[in-house]
Amino acid sequence: MERKILLSEAEMPEFWYNIMADMPNKPLPPLHPGTKEPIGPEMLAPLFPMELIKQEVSTDKWVAIPEAVREIYKIWRPSPLYRAVGLEKLLDTPAKIYYKYEGVSPAGSHKPNTAVAQAYYNAQEGVKKITTETGAGQWGSALSFACQIFGIECEVFMVKVSYNQKPYRKILMNTYGAKVHASPTNLTEAGKQILAQDPNSPGSLGIAISEAVEVAAMNEDTKYALGSVLNHVLMHQTIIGQESIKQLEKVGDLPDIVVAPFGGGSNFAGIAFPFLRLNFDEGKKIRCIAVEPASCPKLTRGKFMYDFGDTVGMTPLLPMYTLGHNFVPSPIHAGGLRYHGAGAIISQLLKDGLIEAQSQYQNEVFEAGMKFAKAEGIIPAPEANHAIATVIQEAEKAKQEGKSKTILFNLCGHGNFDMTAYEAYLSGKLVDHEVTAAEIEASLAEIAPLQV
Amino acid sequence: MERKILLSEAEMPEFWYNIMADMPNKPLPPLHPGTKEPIGPEMLAPLFPMELIKQEVSTDKWVAIPEAVREIYKIWRPSPLYRAVGLEKLLDTPAKIYYKYEGVSPAGSHKPNTAVAQAYYNAQEGVKKITTETGAGQWGSALSFACQIFGIECEVFMVKVSYNQKPYRKILMNTYGAKVHASPTNLTEAGKQILAQDPNSPGSLGIAISEAVEVAAMNEDTKYALGSVLNHVLMHQTIIGQESIKQLEKVGDLPDIVVAPFGGGSNFAGIAFPFLRLNFDEGKKIRCIAVEPASCPKLTRGKFMYDFGDTVGMTPLLPMYTLGHNFVPSPIHAGGLRYHGAGAIISQLLKDGLIEAQSQYQNEVFEAGMKFAKAEGIIPAPEANHAIATVIQEAEKAKQEGKSKTILFNLCGHGNFDMTAYEAYLSGKLVDHEVTAAEIEASLAEIAPLQV
Repeated sequence: MERKILLSEAEMPEFWYNIMADMPNKPLPPLHPGTKEPIGPEMLAPLFPMELIKQEVSTDKWVAIPEAVREIYKIWRPSPLYRAVGLEKLLDTPAKIYYKYEGVSPAGSHKPNTAVAQAYYNAQEGVKKITTETGAGQWGSALSFACQIFGIECEVFMVKVSYNQKPYRKILMNTYGAKVHASPTNLTEAGKQILAQDPNSPGSLGIAISEAVEVAAMNEDTKYALGSVLNHVLMHQTIIGQESIKQLEKVGDLPDIVVAPFGGGSNFAGIAFPFLRLNFDEGKKIRCIAVEPASCPKLTRGKFMYDFGDTVGMTPLLPMYTLGHNFVPSPIHAGGLRYHGAGAIISQLLKDGLIEAQSQYQNEVFEAGMKFAKAEGIIPAPEANHAIATVIQEAEKAKQEGKSKTILFNLCGHGNFDMTAYEAYLSGKLVDHEVTAAEIEASLAEIAPLQV
Repeated sequence: MERKILLSEAEMPEFWYNIMADMPNKPLPPLHPGTKEPIGPEMLAPLFPMELIKQEVSTDKWVAIPEAVREIYKIWRPSPLYRAVGLEKLLDTPAKIYYKYEGVSPAGSHKPNTAVAQAYYNAQEGVKKITTETGAGQWGSALSFACQIFGIECEVFMVKVSYNQKPYRKILMNTYGAKVHASPTNLTEAGKQILAQDPNSPGSLGIAISEAVEVAAMNEDTKYALGSVLNHVLMHQTIIGQESIKQLEKVGDLPDIVVAPFGGGSNFAGIAFPFLRLNFDEGKKIRCIAVEPASCPKLTRGKFMYDFGDTVGMTPLLPMYTLGHNFVPSPIHAGGLRYHGAGAIISQLLKDGLIEAQSQYQNEVFEAGMKFAKAEGIIPAPEANHAIATVIQEAEKAKQEGKSKTILFNLCGHGNFDMTAYEAYLSGKLVDHEVTAAEIEASLAEIAPLQV
């Protein structure tokens, strides 16, 4: 049996799939925080190039991937689809398990799928510099890589606690030519405001977003890029699921369940949306499960409300499942999943019962990741381990029920830059913090005034 | 144009190529250090399983790769062959540049090609534990990965200075279930002897080998494994070059020059030997260039002599280009290349003028690696950067001469675990130590009494 199902470069999809076209209920519009009126595309112009703003609001079902983007994708795409031969054996399960491996990209995760597209459109419109935030560093290193290719300067605000914990990620960004700051900084009004309140602030994704947005808004030839949450970002990732469908067709298979980790949505959307299309277009009943950390449970315990995308309140109000933009998740090692809200599309899909959500505790997540590494050799990113935990539970259920089922998950990246997380697990130092109902209620109460 | 030339799993080679069969002059035999007589296979039995000893002395041209080994190879093999589209453009060269990318293996380098084979044969013969040494950690993590798959315990003696510099590598080995010690240790007589002389010894590959060999020799169900130098190790790597030939055939190409970094020989042998076979069998004139660090110049400035493989003198005497087993190379970041000698086969080939050798300085090596990362996206391992430096020089020569030529090199691994080396380069802190003729002479004088 083949372990890897490959596609040739000629078989790489030529279009991104835009799920907006097929959603029974479109997402609610983003609102201006002052007027509470829907914002128009022109309000996003200081931050994003026009082509990306068009994609953000487009309801075209298929959007062509530019040739120049496909050329760069070829460095690692089409990515391999694996049959998890070793894991199936280890679990002794009748379930068939497949995983799509996005860790083959130069930055080691799925993030370059959108970074390359975003850098390209910015370059096309003459942008000289892009600012962004990064937590664990997956997104920052992907954007640094993409900007260098298209000759654009890149400035990254990296959450200070991660900046100190993950020096390799910072050096990786430098090697790709990017400038990296530990956020909060004294370079922005947003940063100064935070530092005035707490000079020792460890930073957060929300704060780093505020800083990056401010720099872009203040400078003519500078734009901002986001690695998740927004519609166009999610759309760029759909190449993952489309390739997966082609690869599974080659072995005559189709999943019953599609699983992905959940932070802001790009990882999950990338693999799941093309399968949801099969549900919409062909009446399939594929279950798509988003797996979030129990310490940051916006999908499973948050509320569907309007909220800011950042901490300081510089973004429009977005309709999202949220824990409130002041919610500070405990410092778990899956830094990419420590975000208070979910993208508008994902939130609407969940509200409409078209996707499912689960949460997993950190220690179970790493236990699953260790099993995977033992059986398959690849060390998964901590984010990916969330999906693996759910996959293992589903495979064990299949065994108990004595029936086969086909499971596909997104192995969104490798853990080469996250070895300290494994060390913490191996030495029994991972702590699972229980989020109380009162904490969530209090955090959500703070955003009650933002509702229309 | 395609960037990646892929092979299906069904196209994976079924045999390793044993260059011993084709060498005009076979390597000289290893000698017993006491009697100076050739040692028989039985003297290696305490250290290696019988099947590997047979391979060590075999002159069969083709050795079948066991099915169970091929099954594990499928996790990452066949590895992709890249056309270096971006690098050719950056250099504006008429040369065609290809690279074989071995960084797709779970351990991130070519080392698992032999680690998996060695672990398999040990498991077949009932071995319970394997000991080994590791410098930068590439080999140690490859063997840890392989041992876990075949259910064998793995104990790694890691050079102390690397143990402290590269904590991620150590954690990686732990994640694969291996036990890792900072060498020299107090666990062996060899280690104690070194520590008695110098309690602060930073360790060396030679010392770590002495420790690992001692533990294997002292314990019935424990064997030892080496990641380079020996004939069977080099042979296991020939799958790299064989795949490359098949891949180049698909685009109707054949290299004029094959380039690889040089430490003990496995990296170079892996890609070059199958092309040397084309020289032997089909009268091709493919130049094969081994690139070593200027700080450890055994091929370019060492002497062909009998020498020990380790520091303490526990191995047989091996015929090699060597700098003397007491030579201590400056602490460059390409830890995998800091070894005093070259394998017997490579040494004989160089002596007979069938291969070429060059050396490169560390700063030029990293400058080349930065260019590659910028053009191709992948961050190369410091070892691989040595090959890249020579490739860039050859491509620039082609440009000056205004003629095309085809260059293939072994991108033996990624640099994800070596980011501190890039940081040192980026901050101008890499120091190039010039080895004097007097240093080499003095070190070689010490091994004069070992000659027959």
